[in-house]
Amino acid sequence: MDKPYVIGIDVGGTNTVVGIVDKRGQILRSGSLKTAKHANVEDYLDELAEVIEDVIKDIATKEQIKGIGAGTPNGNYFTGSIEFAPNLRWKGIIPFAQMLEERVGIPVALTNDANAAAIGEMTYGAARGMKDFIVITLGTGVGSGIVVNGQLVYGHDGFAGELGHVIMRRSNGRVCGCGRSGCLEAYTSATGVARTAREYLELQHDAKSQLRNIPIDEITSKDVFDAAMAGDEMAKEIFRFTGEMLGEAFADFVAFSSPEAIILFGGLAKAGDLIMNPVRESMERNLLPIFKNKVKLLFSELKESDAAVLGASALGWEVR
Amino acid sequence: MDKPYVIGIDVGGTNTVVGIVDKRGQILRSGSLKTAKHANVEDYLDELAEVIEDVIKDIATKEQIKGIGAGTPNGNYFTGSIEFAPNLRWKGIIPFAQMLEERVGIPVALTNDANAAAIGEMTYGAARGMKDFIVITLGTGVGSGIVVNGQLVYGHDGFAGELGHVIMRRSNGRVCGCGRSGCLEAYTSATGVARTAREYLELQHDAKSQLRNIPIDEITSKDVFDAAMAGDEMAKEIFRFTGEMLGEAFADFVAFSSPEAIILFGGLAKAGDLIMNPVRESMERNLLPIFKNKVKLLFSELKESDAAVLGASALGWEVR
Repeated sequence: MDKPYVIGIDVGGTNTVVGIVDKRGQILRSGSLKTAKHANVEDYLDELAEVIEDVIKDIATKEQIKGIGAGTPNGNYFTGSIEFAPNLRWKGIIPFAQMLEERVGIPVALTNDANAAAIGEMTYGAARGMKDFIVITLGTGVGSGIVVNGQLVYGHDGFAGELGHVIMRRSNGRVCGCGRSGCLEAYTSATGVARTAREYLELQHDAKSQLRNIPIDEITSKDVFDAAMAGDEMAKEIFRFTGEMLGEAFADFVAFSSPEAIILFGGLAKAGDLIMNPVRESMERNLLPIFKNKVKLLFSELKESDAAVLGASALGWEVR
Repeated sequence: MDKPYVIGIDVGGTNTVVGIVDKRGQILRSGSLKTAKHANVEDYLDELAEVIEDVIKDIATKEQIKGIGAGTPNGNYFTGSIEFAPNLRWKGIIPFAQMLEERVGIPVALTNDANAAAIGEMTYGAARGMKDFIVITLGTGVGSGIVVNGQLVYGHDGFAGELGHVIMRRSNGRVCGCGRSGCLEAYTSATGVARTAREYLELQHDAKSQLRNIPIDEITSKDVFDAAMAGDEMAKEIFRFTGEMLGEAFADFVAFSSPEAIILFGGLAKAGDLIMNPVRESMERNLLPIFKNKVKLLFSELKESDAAVLGASALGWEVR
C-alpha cells in the first residue's frame, strides 16, 4: 500500500511540535504540547500520542503514514533513545522511539535536532542532490549534521557530529556548557554572541555602543543583531569576530570531509550577510590551497518555523 | 572466472614498490623501480608496466588479476589522477590510472597513501570488521584515511581526509609545508618531532641531553627515539609534547565522526608506548564526556615493510 505521509516531531525543551508532511515537504497540519509540563515521561508520551492522532485525523489513516521521525535533544539514532538530555525533565536513558511506537502503532525513528536538520535539507532544502555536506545549527548551542556519501554520519555509537565542541581556543578559552573550555559553541552560539557583547562592553570602556542602553546581563544575540543593523560599530565587530571563528572552524571541517557545501541553520543564520560575509572571508583565508573556492556556503532553505518538524519528518521516510 | 589476485603499487617519492597479493593478504612476490629516475612520466610508466608483468609472471595470468590498486602522493580516487604532487618530478595532473591501464590491460584504481593504508587496515589489519575508524599516518608528513559507515571518506572532490592540516595553534604556530601555520603536521610528523627537538635544544640552554652530541641540523625523529629509549629526559619530553598534541587533535576528530578506533600507522608509530601513552592520556582528557573511554587507540597491524603495498592492493579488490 502506498504510504504518502510522514509525521515529524520536534521535541524542544519547552514545546513539542508535531506535523503531518507529504512527499513534497508540505506540512498539512500541525499541533503542539508543552514538553516541560510532564514530570513523568509516560504522561508526556500519552499526551503526545493524542496530539499525533489529532493531527492525522482529518488527513489520513494510520496505514497511510510511512513513519514518524523525531528530532530530540541527545537523540540516538541507533538506540532510539534520548540519552541524558540536560534540558529535559526526564533523566537517564528514555527509550523514546519504542515507547511512542507502542502508543501509536507507527514505526518511530529518532535522532538529534541537528541531524534532523541535515536530513531535512537533503530531502526538501538547500542540500537536495548533494552527497557530501555539513549543516551547522546556530542556536542556543551549536550543533551539526554531517552527510558523507549521501548518508548521515552517526559514528560507531550514534553520537557523531558534535562540531560545536571542537576546541577553537586551547589557552584561556571560554568555559563551555559541556564542562570543557574553548569550544566553538562557547563563542558562536546565540549565547556565545551575547557573551562576546558583554566582554566587548566590559573591556572596551571607551567605545560607544547602543548596546550600553541595555542592562548588560540581559543582552541577547537579537539585540546585537538589531544594533548591527542600525550601524552600531561594536555590534558589527561582534558579528565579524563570530564569523571569523566560524570560518576558522569550517576550514578544519573541510579538511576532514571535503563537503560540497556547509549550510547555516537556526536563529543566528537569520543575521544573513552580517554573519556570512566574515565566515566566507575567514574560511577561504584559512583553507588548505586545494580546497579554496570550492566549498559553497549556504543558508538553510527550510522555512524557519517549519524547519525542525520538516527535518524530523524526513527521517520518517527512512524508517524500517 | 575467479580472480584470486590483486596488484598493489606504492608510489613513493624515491621508490615505487609493486606486489602481487592473494585474498589472505599475502604478498606472493614483489618488485621495485626508482620513481625519481624518469623525468618523463611515460618512461616511468613503461618501466612500471614491465615490473608488473615480471611480478605476475610465475604466479598468475593477467586474467586472474582482479585489479591494480595504487597509493600515490596526491592521488585522487575520483579522477584516477595524481594532481600537483610536490614530491614527484611530474608536474600538473597525471592521469595515472588510465595511462597504466592502457599499458597493462588490467583495471587500475588509485588513491592517496593514507587512504590506501585505511583500506589496508580494514581489509587485512587492525580495522577488520570495523565500519567507523580513522587511520593517522605519522611519517614525513601526517596523513589520514577516514572510514564512515564502512566506506572511505573521499568528499565531493576526492580530497577529504587532510587531518594533518587541521590547525592546532592559531597564534604563533609553526610554518607548515602547506604554506599556512600551526598545522598538526608541523608538530607531529617525523619532521615535526625533529623541529621540536631543535626548539627544545635552543630554548633550554641549561638542560642536558644526549641530543646535544648530534649536529643540531641533522637531528631526526629516530635520534629522538633512540635518546628517549636510553632514558634521556628531554627526548622523553619531546615525545610527551608530540603525543599530547596528537591527543588534542584526536579529541576533535572524535567529535566529528565518533570512530570505533583511531589507528596509528607509519614511522613514528614505531615509538610504541613512548608516543601512545601521552596520546591516550591527552585524548581522554580532551574528549567530550559522552566519548570518554569509548574510542580504541591502536597500532597498525600491517607489517611495516609491506604495509603500503598491501594497503594499495586492497583497493584492487574494489576496482569496477
